[in-house]
Amino acid sequence: MTTVLGQNNYGKSRVRLVRVARHPDRHDITDLTVDVALEGDFAAAHVRGDNSGMLATDTMRNTVYALAPEHLTGALEAFGLALARRFLAAGPSGTRARVRLAEYPWERLTAGGGEHPYGFQRGAGGTRVAVVVADADGARYEAGLEDLLVLKTTGSGWAGFLREEYTSLDETTDRVMATSVTASWAYEPGEHDFDGLHAGVRDRILATFDDHFSPSVQRTLYLMGEAVLACHPEVTRISFALPNKHHLLYDLGRFGIENDNEIFHVTNEPYGLIEGAVERAG
Amino acid sequence: MTTVLGQNNYGKSRVRLVRVARHPDRHDITDLTVDVALEGDFAAAHVRGDNSGMLATDTMRNTVYALAPEHLTGALEAFGLALARRFLAAGPSGTRARVRLAEYPWERLTAGGGEHPYGFQRGAGGTRVAVVVADADGARYEAGLEDLLVLKTTGSGWAGFLREEYTSLDETTDRVMATSVTASWAYEPGEHDFDGLHAGVRDRILATFDDHFSPSVQRTLYLMGEAVLACHPEVTRISFALPNKHHLLYDLGRFGIENDNEIFHVTNEPYGLIEGAVERAG
Amino acid sequence: MTTVLGQNNYGKSRVRLVRVARHPDRHDITDLTVDVALEGDFAAAHVRGDNSGMLATDTMRNTVYALAPEHLTGALEAFGLALARRFLAAGPSGTRARVRLAEYPWERLTAGGGEHPYGFQRGAGGTRVAVVVADADGARYEAGLEDLLVLKTTGSGWAGFLREEYTSLDETTDRVMATSVTASWAYEPGEHDFDGLHAGVRDRILATFDDHFSPSVQRTLYLMGEAVLACHPEVTRISFALPNKHHLLYDLGRFGIENDNEIFHVTNEPYGLIEGAVERAG
Amino acid sequence: MTTVLGQNNYGKSRVRLVRVARHPDRHDITDLTVDVALEGDFAAAHVRGDNSGMLATDTMRNTVYALAPEHLTGALEAFGLALARRFLAAGPSGTRARVRLAEYPWERLTAGGGEHPYGFQRGAGGTRVAVVVADADGARYEAGLEDLLVLKTTGSGWAGFLREEYTSLDETTDRVMATSVTASWAYEPGEHDFDGLHAGVRDRILATFDDHFSPSVQRTLYLMGEAVLACHPEVTRISFALPNKHHLLYDLGRFGIENDNEIFHVTNEPYGLIEGAVERAG
Repeated sequence: MTTVLGQNNYGKSRVRLVRVARHPDRHDITDLTVDVALEGDFAAAHVRGDNSGMLATDTMRNTVYALAPEHLTGALEAFGLALARRFLAAGPSGTRARVRLAEYPWERLTAGGGEHPYGFQRGAGGTRVAVVVADADGARYEAGLEDLLVLKTTGSGWAGFLREEYTSLDETTDRVMATSVTASWAYEPGEHDFDGLHAGVRDRILATFDDHFSPSVQRTLYLMGEAVLACHPEVTRISFALPNKHHLLYDLGRFGIENDNEIFHVTNEPYGLIEGAVERAG
Repeated sequence: MTTVLGQNNYGKSRVRLVRVARHPDRHDITDLTVDVALEGDFAAAHVRGDNSGMLATDTMRNTVYALAPEHLTGALEAFGLALARRFLAAGPSGTRARVRLAEYPWERLTAGGGEHPYGFQRGAGGTRVAVVVADADGARYEAGLEDLLVLKTTGSGWAGFLREEYTSLDETTDRVMATSVTASWAYEPGEHDFDGLHAGVRDRILATFDDHFSPSVQRTLYLMGEAVLACHPEVTRISFALPNKHHLLYDLGRFGIENDNEIFHVTNEPYGLIEGAVERAG
Repeated sequence: MTTVLGQNNYGKSRVRLVRVARHPDRHDITDLTVDVALEGDFAAAHVRGDNSGMLATDTMRNTVYALAPEHLTGALEAFGLALARRFLAAGPSGTRARVRLAEYPWERLTAGGGEHPYGFQRGAGGTRVAVVVADADGARYEAGLEDLLVLKTTGSGWAGFLREEYTSLDETTDRVMATSVTASWAYEPGEHDFDGLHAGVRDRILATFDDHFSPSVQRTLYLMGEAVLACHPEVTRISFALPNKHHLLYDLGRFGIENDNEIFHVTNEPYGLIEGAVERAG
Repeated sequence: MTTVLGQNNYGKSRVRLVRVARHPDRHDITDLTVDVALEGDFAAAHVRGDNSGMLATDTMRNTVYALAPEHLTGALEAFGLALARRFLAAGPSGTRARVRLAEYPWERLTAGGGEHPYGFQRGAGGTRVAVVVADADGARYEAGLEDLLVLKTTGSGWAGFLREEYTSLDETTDRVMATSVTASWAYEPGEHDFDGLHAGVRDRILATFDDHFSPSVQRTLYLMGEAVLACHPEVTRISFALPNKHHLLYDLGRFGIENDNEIFHVTNEPYGLIEGAVERAG
């Protein structure tokens, strides 16, 4: 028997970086968690214990901070690209670098009246994700959204589904639908207005979520994907993971109390999980 | 030796309830986690295994949902009071009921243009808390805030502190200050405009957070408390727990890169924790 | 109106420390999370922004590590005492120091045959807690346990409880009982064999958990407390927080399948929470 | 432009099931979280809102419990296979079913003396995972381990690595190495002694972790994989995800205190993450 090293990668995860841009009239902040993964020819380290071609993950961390002053000035994707290229250039072993950037939303404080120049609170709208994968053939960009909680109190049902021996669920044509959107999409090769595109995709997802009667999470997933692709030709494919955050009508009839689609208990497990991609034909 | 039962209580925790109010032109939602704790004479159950005076925690759960249609129509505090009174009335053993309600923020979706009548996304601003404690002497109200993340990029320092053998920290007069505010306050006895007061207290906390140069988290804590008490005579006392979310300047000088208060790494542990109450004199 | 500073404290939380004791034949490890809280006269910092009496929380962190070589050699309590005294001695403002130490269990690896001299895996049995509170009057010791998951598949029921309008739960004389034990106890003043006592208290809790038919979590709580106090005169009082980890019989009868107390679904929220103290009379 | 549905699946996640086997002399428990994912032709639901071919995720949950009395009696894999086949048989749309079972360890209580017949505490050793994927071509089995925390206090280093502009890390030939092992492996087609194999693979991983001087996490990863493949011909490939739980020597020299590889602070982020597969050649 001979064993060989298969697919492998390594890197630094959860590098927490905040950049403060100090403009004369206001400060801006960028609050990121960066994950780096490097692929390449690392067999010497695995098989012979030879580290001479290995970039330390501590060096990757230093690099994230070191490149931020110059490169974290525009879209996350530009910073990711600079990092990925640097990791490839740092040594001969790495052949593909993957940099993932997750950005947390902050909004300006307004409690004192007007937008505060340097005071912020955590904002709504979920986490923005940017992924850059670079190798000898160039770079690919992906983007995404995480932890975007949405809910609609009507305009959703679940009926006409398959019934068999272990089916006990009633049909409904009016339910609460809630999910935490995770979305991930790929861009056409090349540079784009990544900030504008991300805002546009998020807007399409939110606008579509509640613009139709939803007969299933699957249907809403597909419509959200279709809307994004229709509006943004730069997006080639979008995939979603939509956990069904079940809101169940609580049985109050046994106590002689009417519950006219008004009082729900929310359960967190188990949950339905609907995953799917929407892409361009051909 | 004789052992006796000391302080004790029991109840149901994390009852997840969503109420949908279906108005003709729009729906409103209230999304709560309710915790119930009952104190009283429960020695029979503990010492003799006699459950005859024990209200089941499952009954407490049912009660939370059962009272919601009639009582969860205004301020959280009114619902809490109805629940607390009901738990006291349900049997002879319970002598004090504590109901804690945590409300998650939702904001209307606007991505389709205009405020959507029944579509929501998770909002900013942290979790609102209301606590009602009722016994034979009446009811007391407390309120609070949780998970309110705030940050300012300047206007904060930490200098002039005690230096001794194990002190290595440098002084600074310009740092990033960030915390996740947990606040809890008590009201004067009686009924109040609890919704308006809660919004007012939150507003005072946020407005004060960035209206002064902060020489320490302690100083900001005190100023926030003072502002709340000055503005809202109904509040008798407010306490805060303010974890210091450290943003540390990353050492880039060793790589020949200037870091002019721009690039920070964020650490989550260990963290400074500053806790204190501000109250009225006399 | 005049506002004043009320109860307050500050310190460093979640200081993560591992000590390796390198004996000739084996290594031992102590893996701790340390939380420090200092009370005292900190009004100058809060009210006037004067930090001159403030020990930095960063200094507290340094101190935890600095005192470990000399003082973290026996029971956790001795280390806690050395830290608490040091924090009081460091400056004039602090008048009471509270040091909490949580120790994670590691057990020696044996997969290679025999106990490995320096290889470990995370062990069972939950987290050990030690708390030392020191002030001008001396020191008090408390100890505790966290995250000790226990379950018994029979020997437990819940019957004869109060029934009223919103009660829907059936009685049972044979159920699964499961909880995650959090216990906290106080010692008589003075020094004790803290390691032996902790092991003894844990043993009493575990041995009592399944030595009786339990008519309620309350009854088991009381019996566990009674057993600890009976066996260990050094313990003056013990309190428990016992979440009821509900295991509910799944309704399979609707599918024509018998479920003879065999198949359960486990829910994590809501949950019953039973809290109580057992202490010595008089 | 035409959009089409891409890769998709749906199912029920986090179905929490406990089975109690009531033998005359003792009870055994199996404590599982089950995740189900179904692939197939679900375009009608996505594109046309036609649910007629859709098995409800609620039905999947019922099925997990309904099949447990008959099929959850031996290895997890047999239960997973029964479930996967059932989901494929339940309707015409599903063409591939993936069932993932995670089992939590419980060990018998012994505090009362002897092994208790029906009392348990949470055990050490991490979570066992079994995955069954079934389609028209048959079934494939994978297995795994999660949350297996291991640490060695010596016998590990990190030296001779690539040094470049942003490298600041010192070399070391004696460090603490700690990780939380996630492992996943595939079996040769066919039925095996899955329980024995799982115990054997875990044993190989643990025995290898501390049987060599480790020049890198990568080298230990490879040796663990090699040992598993050498010992268990039924295993075709094993992959690992090994987060480096950094234990950093605390700088006490600045306080005049010697730290001879004894006092470490533990950081949880950022962390190195080493992932790789070991497989059979050819």
